Amino acid sequence: MTSPRRSGRRPGDSGTREAILAAAKESFAASGYNATTIRGVGRAAGVDPALVHHFFGTKQDLFAAAMELPVDPAQMVPALLADGLDGLGERLVRMFLLVWDGTPGQGPMLALLRSAAANDQAAAMLREFLTHAILGPLARAAGHDRPELRASLIGSQMMGLAVARYIVRLEPLATADADKIAPIIGPTVQRYLTGDLP
Amino acid sequence: MTSPRRSGRRPGDSGTREAILAAAKESFAASGYNATTIRGVGRAAGVDPALVHHFFGTKQDLFAAAMELPVDPAQMVPALLADGLDGLGERLVRMFLLVWDGTPGQGPMLALLRSAAANDQAAAMLREFLTHAILGPLARAAGHDRPELRASLIGSQMMGLAVARYIVRLEPLATADADKIAPIIGPTVQRYLTGDLP
Repeated sequence: MTSPRRSGRRPGDSGTREAILAAAKESFAASGYNATTIRGVGRAAGVDPALVHHFFGTKQDLFAAAMELPVDPAQMVPALLADGLDGLGERLVRMFLLVWDGTPGQGPMLALLRSAAANDQAAAMLREFLTHAILGPLARAAGHDRPELRASLIGSQMMGLAVARYIVRLEPLATADADKIAPIIGPTVQRYLTGDLP
Repeated sequence: MTSPRRSGRRPGDSGTREAILAAAKESFAASGYNATTIRGVGRAAGVDPALVHHFFGTKQDLFAAAMELPVDPAQMVPALLADGLDGLGERLVRMFLLVWDGTPGQGPMLALLRSAAANDQAAAMLREFLTHAILGPLARAAGHDRPELRASLIGSQMMGLAVARYIVRLEPLATADADKIAPIIGPTVQRYLTGDLP
């Protein structure tokens, strides 16, 4: 389904892409993640929804492109699940740190988190995106009881890791290697995902 | 040491208190937690440092007063430790939620966290305060290896809980009872505080 860009570009493609991206950014910011639709973005950009889909794939992909996220959750979640549930917590922490550490200044992800702290609309967008695109699918795929609770618990530890490492910069968490952090925080995420919870 | 206010007030006390508080707020905001001293605040307020101490006690107490925190960490940490290390993680989460939930709009604590997300100076103040007044003393008192690492790990989970519950509002964590959350997140904090870490 995801064919982000064909090799044979037509004249005008780049202008159309830009118009779609601008419309998507505006819609995500104004209406949030849930209320934004491929159809609505197409309408706002003055193009057929099929063209939005053609350029950007699913709504998740479009969000990742609009927010300039360095990874696409539509690919990240299946990649994490591919090796089974064993050690998934540690792999999630490792992938998270790899992506954040690998993005200079933590780029748009940190910007998203900062925005969420500053205004409710951005907070709602981040909540809906996390819930529907990453944490929810992950927790449901793990197949244990109360997936919503598990998803929100994992969210608390992962957002807290981001805040502690990149914003408040608590040492040694702020500068420790991902290889050192993943085996320590991984078990927390694993317990939230698959452990027995009271 | 802590004698926040004598019962027999002298005329002018309230003006002096206000002047000290204003000087403290300005110093914490401009210079951070570490660089702020009782002596410096006294000088800025035009009073003897002994008077700052008389009105507000230690620097921790002064910070709690300046930030209008609903609890004083100088009392909170000993209270948590009083019942020993067993179950301390759960007690910390419970106390944290009690204080935050009990403060309408989560008041100055949430404001502090939001400020930290918005600018580096506030982030430094929060980091120094957390490290020196709460997490550091708690981790050192627990007496296990690598107290700085443990303190920063606990910080990541507790700040993440605040972000998930009060800012991003991930459900069901956003509205669940403290009594339900404490036994779930408590073991994470307990492991960070006293568990074997790789």
